[in-house]
Amino acid sequence: MTNSVRIALDAMGGDFGPSVVVPGAARARDRRPDTSYLFFGDEQLIKPLLDKYPKLAAVSEIRHTVVVVKNDDKPSQALRTGRRGSSMWLAVEAVKKGEADAAVSAGNTGALMAMSKIALHMLPGIERPALAAIWPTVRGESIVLDVGATIGADAEHLVDLAIMGSAMARIFFDIDRPSVGLLNVGTEEIKGLEEVKAASRRLREAALPTLDYRGFVEGDDLGKGTVDVVVTEGFTGNIALKTAEGTAKQIARYMRDAFGSSLISRIGAALASGAFRALKEKIDPRRVNGGLFLGLDGIIIKSHGGMDELGFAGAIEIGYEMVRHGLLEKIRETITLSSEGANAPVAGDATSS
Amino acid sequence: MTNSVRIALDAMGGDFGPSVVVPGAARARDRRPDTSYLFFGDEQLIKPLLDKYPKLAAVSEIRHTVVVVKNDDKPSQALRTGRRGSSMWLAVEAVKKGEADAAVSAGNTGALMAMSKIALHMLPGIERPALAAIWPTVRGESIVLDVGATIGADAEHLVDLAIMGSAMARIFFDIDRPSVGLLNVGTEEIKGLEEVKAASRRLREAALPTLDYRGFVEGDDLGKGTVDVVVTEGFTGNIALKTAEGTAKQIARYMRDAFGSSLISRIGAALASGAFRALKEKIDPRRVNGGLFLGLDGIIIKSHGGMDELGFAGAIEIGYEMVRHGLLEKIRETITLSSEGANAPVAGDATSS
Repeated sequence: MTNSVRIALDAMGGDFGPSVVVPGAARARDRRPDTSYLFFGDEQLIKPLLDKYPKLAAVSEIRHTVVVVKNDDKPSQALRTGRRGSSMWLAVEAVKKGEADAAVSAGNTGALMAMSKIALHMLPGIERPALAAIWPTVRGESIVLDVGATIGADAEHLVDLAIMGSAMARIFFDIDRPSVGLLNVGTEEIKGLEEVKAASRRLREAALPTLDYRGFVEGDDLGKGTVDVVVTEGFTGNIALKTAEGTAKQIARYMRDAFGSSLISRIGAALASGAFRALKEKIDPRRVNGGLFLGLDGIIIKSHGGMDELGFAGAIEIGYEMVRHGLLEKIRETITLSSEGANAPVAGDATSS
Repeated sequence: MTNSVRIALDAMGGDFGPSVVVPGAARARDRRPDTSYLFFGDEQLIKPLLDKYPKLAAVSEIRHTVVVVKNDDKPSQALRTGRRGSSMWLAVEAVKKGEADAAVSAGNTGALMAMSKIALHMLPGIERPALAAIWPTVRGESIVLDVGATIGADAEHLVDLAIMGSAMARIFFDIDRPSVGLLNVGTEEIKGLEEVKAASRRLREAALPTLDYRGFVEGDDLGKGTVDVVVTEGFTGNIALKTAEGTAKQIARYMRDAFGSSLISRIGAALASGAFRALKEKIDPRRVNGGLFLGLDGIIIKSHGGMDELGFAGAIEIGYEMVRHGLLEKIRETITLSSEGANAPVAGDATSS
């Protein structure tokens, strides 16, 4: 790592491409002056935008490419057309080559995942990657993983998720020992999947110094913020995430219908506009933008495709923090610890690291 | 079935016992005069309440019992103390004995499920039970199953869920051919669990006349109401349901905080109170109270434990409709149809029915 944190950007990703990526990077640089940028994409589009932000331009380099992964490309299509030459591939590859410390893309999630898996190695002791989301709660935020990188999980993978998610939480929340819960359908005796129960036993026995395992949590604990890190298998995690997003949209729709229904309601809503603003801010997805791929030997951030520059800057800053505070080292340490535990051989062979 | 629909009630179930169950039944009887009731529970508590509703009392019978399943009993405990003698057990058994057409309990879900499984047979061709929930959507309601009766599902069980859920939907929505979707993590090629993909192929090939299979849906389709029936395995379904409930509570909390934050906001909120009422009504859980156990040879309804009499009456009415419109026959017919399909032997041996 050089003095500055070097961020590789897929300038063509997302719904708006460079028109959001460049101003987003400018914002991130203002807040984190010790950053520098590698933009991958169409120089003709990037250069004029970059010229508007001289401070950013001074710490940036453009690598021209015309190949773009489309938002609706299937992962296999993306790999066929975009491997080697696309802005997304090149941003990920910059991390692999050591030219950048982290990569950020607002492009197609499936394609980004597929490319990251091919371009980067797994961390020693981790078998499969995960996607971690930042989940707004009534207490603040939690980290929830896996939200869809890997379908199906045995007990060992669930333990790995706990280790990786808590390493991210230590940095993101700046705490020593984040609380961790395993998502389950209840705390009753006969309930739950076998692998979830086995993972729970392992986590309890391992008694890791880097995380505070609290047992099972249920779906409604996500919004409550009962624990800092919620661990679940990728199928269920993805459905929980999209269900929550869908419910938030549904209620927003009910609100629009209700408050637009009469003149008096509209006047009341206008008077309470400050409250509406506060509410909107609370459920603003830009506050929690940025999914993190975990388990790979490199830091790759997925920004939502529809984000504006504020949201994209937030995704860059997550990458920055993870680099500055040594996410990969933190994961490696705990994997080694957990595999050394005599009672709890929770991960694969970590001695090769 | 006699002329009236006979409802067995666990009068001691839920947070409020007879003080909600009896007035709830009175409301249900007012709206459905062709019903009669069997109350199981403490006669000393039930009788005085029943005396307040002479019309209800005229079509009711009390069966005295003092054993009560507690809300926090584990299913094994409930079976130990409550089998044979508890109000919950006796209500379920009344259905088995043919003394009642349906049973409603607001008691402990796990215990009710365990007792129903022991007391009742499975429908021919169905291997495992399911719990179906009514899910509010921006379009109205959908039916979602399984929300936690059975953990883990192979393709065959998922097809059974589609058949059972659509039979319920035909009655509940009064339509001939409800649309059905399988919950998945996306429509992309490599995504999804093997059993979900296999169930999708079977449903497409079976081309059943009683349901309109629409393919995969995602978590955010639940709130959108994209299909009438959403099918998923019980672990994921339970987590999706609780995640949605948790998200709704979380947003309600944000709203309270936001609108109570200043005098102007409070005045605005007061002016817009009609809108708040409309909103509250929209997300009122009483509108959609009543989970239905499916797959058993009997109609068992689970009312939420915290419901008031309106909500409990709604649960009774769901039971009423399912009896009047022959839920069990509708399931049997489709199971037979699907097992006769040469290309798609989707269910077990249904010829014994």
